[in-house]
Amino acid sequence: MTEIPVLENILRANDQLARLVRQRLAAAGVVAFNLIGSPGAGKTALLEQTLPRLSSNLPAAVIEADCATARDAQRILALGVQVVQINTGKGCHVPAHLVLQALDSLALDKTRLLMIENVGNLVCPSELDIGETGKIAVTSATEGDDKPQKYPMLFRECHAVVLNKVDLIPFTNFSRDRFEADLRGINPQVPLFLVSCRTGEGIEAWVEWLRGRLSPSPVLF
Amino acid sequence: MTEIPVLENILRANDQLARLVRQRLAAAGVVAFNLIGSPGAGKTALLEQTLPRLSSNLPAAVIEADCATARDAQRILALGVQVVQINTGKGCHVPAHLVLQALDSLALDKTRLLMIENVGNLVCPSELDIGETGKIAVTSATEGDDKPQKYPMLFRECHAVVLNKVDLIPFTNFSRDRFEADLRGINPQVPLFLVSCRTGEGIEAWVEWLRGRLSPSPVLF
Repeated sequence: MTEIPVLENILRANDQLARLVRQRLAAAGVVAFNLIGSPGAGKTALLEQTLPRLSSNLPAAVIEADCATARDAQRILALGVQVVQINTGKGCHVPAHLVLQALDSLALDKTRLLMIENVGNLVCPSELDIGETGKIAVTSATEGDDKPQKYPMLFRECHAVVLNKVDLIPFTNFSRDRFEADLRGINPQVPLFLVSCRTGEGIEAWVEWLRGRLSPSPVLF
Repeated sequence: MTEIPVLENILRANDQLARLVRQRLAAAGVVAFNLIGSPGAGKTALLEQTLPRLSSNLPAAVIEADCATARDAQRILALGVQVVQINTGKGCHVPAHLVLQALDSLALDKTRLLMIENVGNLVCPSELDIGETGKIAVTSATEGDDKPQKYPMLFRECHAVVLNKVDLIPFTNFSRDRFEADLRGINPQVPLFLVSCRTGEGIEAWVEWLRGRLSPSPVLF
């Protein structure tokens, strides 16, 4: 009996393209992180604090995604780091096909770390694969201590949590204990970094963790 | 010649259901606002400041939408205001059909104002009609002064902007001038209220505007 080939739609288009992104990054030896957080959580500010501490021996590149404007890319360019801006228009996240296109504009052979700053959104980007090595949740103390349980998808999926704006805690009702209990209820083991991108507090511990993911024999997760 | 009836898909399912929501609210004489803003912008805190100032002669009801938990609804319940919690799971906004279902749990004949607090998200809820009378953008100074141009859809569509957490401006690099220039480039006329839900600053002007939308001969927009 002749077997009839049956094509099954195992992977959606996005996942097929995410696989292509992952293959290109692996071939070039690039580690890529997908930065996800609310509008104004401080994703770009975190890059501004992080990249100058890495760039000498660990060359970086950035993909910025926003609904509109190239303001974030301009801030990265001012650091002397190669950057591509994606404008998603009404799109609430960056899909894999746009990341794949953006790779054409980057010198991957001169890149060790790729940071992909997603559209400011705590919901939609959380579960979409864009070919990244890992997801980083960026949240801020001024958003309140109840975000992990209210938006569990990202906090469950991510490989590290950066809590920004800890310098403002004294002026809010944010409780570090409540936040940590909230987060541990969702993800007991994920590394948590308390930082202020304004004062520089806590940045070094986060950067040290990141360096561990970029060493010659990286400990990924 | 016999004319052939041609059905056109003029309204999507959501818009048909939004129309039903609007009809039920109009029949009951209820004015409804859709509160849209980032996670942690202070939408629930704004309701906590607003509702006690209205409730004596202008009875209110609230629909709370979150991915998970009933925490926001519990905060509204503590005010003695009728409330329904919608959990959207992975959904990044509340669609009209869930609002329509929620109306069944509210005593609309005893309601003058319905506040629908959307999922924390500055992108996806902006352009979806859920049968509301108007959209309110809730943003906060700690998110930065660049949000209107970076997330233009909401700031273009909304009928009022509430900028919360102005008490924290001295501890950030937020510029009121830059924010207002950014907003006016998107929406020159929209009413703007600068408030702090923590100190109560500016709340009265916002509530006064809201009262004007609820008077016997309301000036809607």
